[in-house]
Amino acid sequence: MITFVQVLDFIGTLAFAISGIRLASAKRFDLFGAYVVGVTTAIGGGTMRDVLLSQSPFWMDNAFYLLCSAFALLWVIVFRRFLVRQNNTWFLFDTIGLALFTVTGIEKTVAAGFPFWTAIIMGTLTGAGGGVIRDVFINEVPLIFRKEIYALACVFGGVAYYFCARLGFDNVTSGIMCGAVVLVSRLLAVKFHLSLPVLKAEDADEPKKD
Amino acid sequence: MITFVQVLDFIGTLAFAISGIRLASAKRFDLFGAYVVGVTTAIGGGTMRDVLLSQSPFWMDNAFYLLCSAFALLWVIVFRRFLVRQNNTWFLFDTIGLALFTVTGIEKTVAAGFPFWTAIIMGTLTGAGGGVIRDVFINEVPLIFRKEIYALACVFGGVAYYFCARLGFDNVTSGIMCGAVVLVSRLLAVKFHLSLPVLKAEDADEPKKD
Amino acid sequence: MITFVQVLDFIGTLAFAISGIRLASAKRFDLFGAYVVGVTTAIGGGTMRDVLLSQSPFWMDNAFYLLCSAFALLWVIVFRRFLVRQNNTWFLFDTIGLALFTVTGIEKTVAAGFPFWTAIIMGTLTGAGGGVIRDVFINEVPLIFRKEIYALACVFGGVAYYFCARLGFDNVTSGIMCGAVVLVSRLLAVKFHLSLPVLKAEDADEPKKD
Repeated sequence: MITFVQVLDFIGTLAFAISGIRLASAKRFDLFGAYVVGVTTAIGGGTMRDVLLSQSPFWMDNAFYLLCSAFALLWVIVFRRFLVRQNNTWFLFDTIGLALFTVTGIEKTVAAGFPFWTAIIMGTLTGAGGGVIRDVFINEVPLIFRKEIYALACVFGGVAYYFCARLGFDNVTSGIMCGAVVLVSRLLAVKFHLSLPVLKAEDADEPKKD
Repeated sequence: MITFVQVLDFIGTLAFAISGIRLASAKRFDLFGAYVVGVTTAIGGGTMRDVLLSQSPFWMDNAFYLLCSAFALLWVIVFRRFLVRQNNTWFLFDTIGLALFTVTGIEKTVAAGFPFWTAIIMGTLTGAGGGVIRDVFINEVPLIFRKEIYALACVFGGVAYYFCARLGFDNVTSGIMCGAVVLVSRLLAVKFHLSLPVLKAEDADEPKKD
Repeated sequence: MITFVQVLDFIGTLAFAISGIRLASAKRFDLFGAYVVGVTTAIGGGTMRDVLLSQSPFWMDNAFYLLCSAFALLWVIVFRRFLVRQNNTWFLFDTIGLALFTVTGIEKTVAAGFPFWTAIIMGTLTGAGGGVIRDVFINEVPLIFRKEIYALACVFGGVAYYFCARLGFDNVTSGIMCGAVVLVSRLLAVKFHLSLPVLKAEDADEPKKD
């Protein structure tokens, strides 16, 4: 039996891996390099979470995530010419992954006995950490530190989870609320180009030439 | 009761976080990105140490470090125009942090049963590791590998700790001596622009044009 | 008594450290920075493996690897002018290291009770991971994602190990077969400039100017 959560997990892993493979290919990584970056994007956040929680990384006894990333590589090879046209779909899938990974990160951290604010950090790390490693590998400044609200959507979802739990909702309801908040925050952020302000340069008040 | 060590810890964490926030802002990271880089600079070294020691990272059940980094962000926002004028203060605070973090890194590693040379490495990692992650995030070559003596000051402090311990001094005295050596090494290094030599290029003996 | 494996370990560690020190020096890192990059190249892959296996990193109670890297630094300082002429030797030593580290990574992972495909990944990480950290430190796109077959040679070796084990060979024979496959794959790859294809840009079918 395949559960609904497993379907979401497949969709999210696929979207994360494809984002890594596309960016690596644009930097002229070979097929192996592109696969490594794809896998790292997909499992990197959860791996850092598990290491910080002193647990064995989730993918080490479950081949699903590596196979899923291999499928992503195949997809990029076969449908290369159509990927740009599929951008809206991949954006949606990526956001579904972001939402699901946030929820699983929160729940695993709470189950390990850490305070809720740590769980929110771990949820954010699970969702957004893989993308940071991806950008370090392709030697770019991590995108999520500069573009529309991304990791902050995970924080919003985590706060929503906290309030749901405090109000007495069960885990499933709280998780759904959390995921919905991540999804809606991210969709609104991209639709309306919402991003956080950038701190002005320290000498911005003086006239300057560069 | 707030202890003297806690005051130093606050000062050091604040200085490390502010260095991360300033460099991230100069690269046009948004507020969230700047905060993440600030936190990482402050807690990154100790986190790597704890992971290598197979221990739970120190900040995961103590909100102090994240709050302190939030305070650093607020400080940069409010006193943005005065930061350059505060440079000497921040340099001093950064050095206090470097000294304290080296001592805590050494003591935690010795307590975990590792040999003293491993403790010196862990002290250096605790003090200087956060700055390396910061520089990777902002996509620059890590500064400490190129500028005035920085991580080496931690090594000097660690060696001082070792000799104090061998001579029969208690932990507090050895720790103070270690911190003092780090502090003085770093202050002298910056005052007199002391830096280690760079290996000449391998073809430096032949005439060369670039 | 020094065993044959220890000799190979020395050769491999030396070659890995030297590759890090040379690349760091070319980027004008100071002696300390060059040493850190050298050490990281030599022990980085095995350290990540041990962290993922929830074990204490192998170098933390054995000073051999740090001393070996110090010897590498000395070598580069003394024989700087002759290093280019020694390139073939260092390439061979680097490949011996790659082969040995792959075998130790596989065996440690199998001993920890993980499935064989995880062991192949860990073998590859042990062999090729240090080079990736090195390239992140010197702020370059990791070389192994772009140049001739490197990490893939570890995968081939891992598959060879698996089949040997399935056919009933003992660990020593399987390990030798694995190492030989890594060695031969890598030597052939460099001799014949074998590299994996790069995914074409997504708009490659349209005329393009850059």
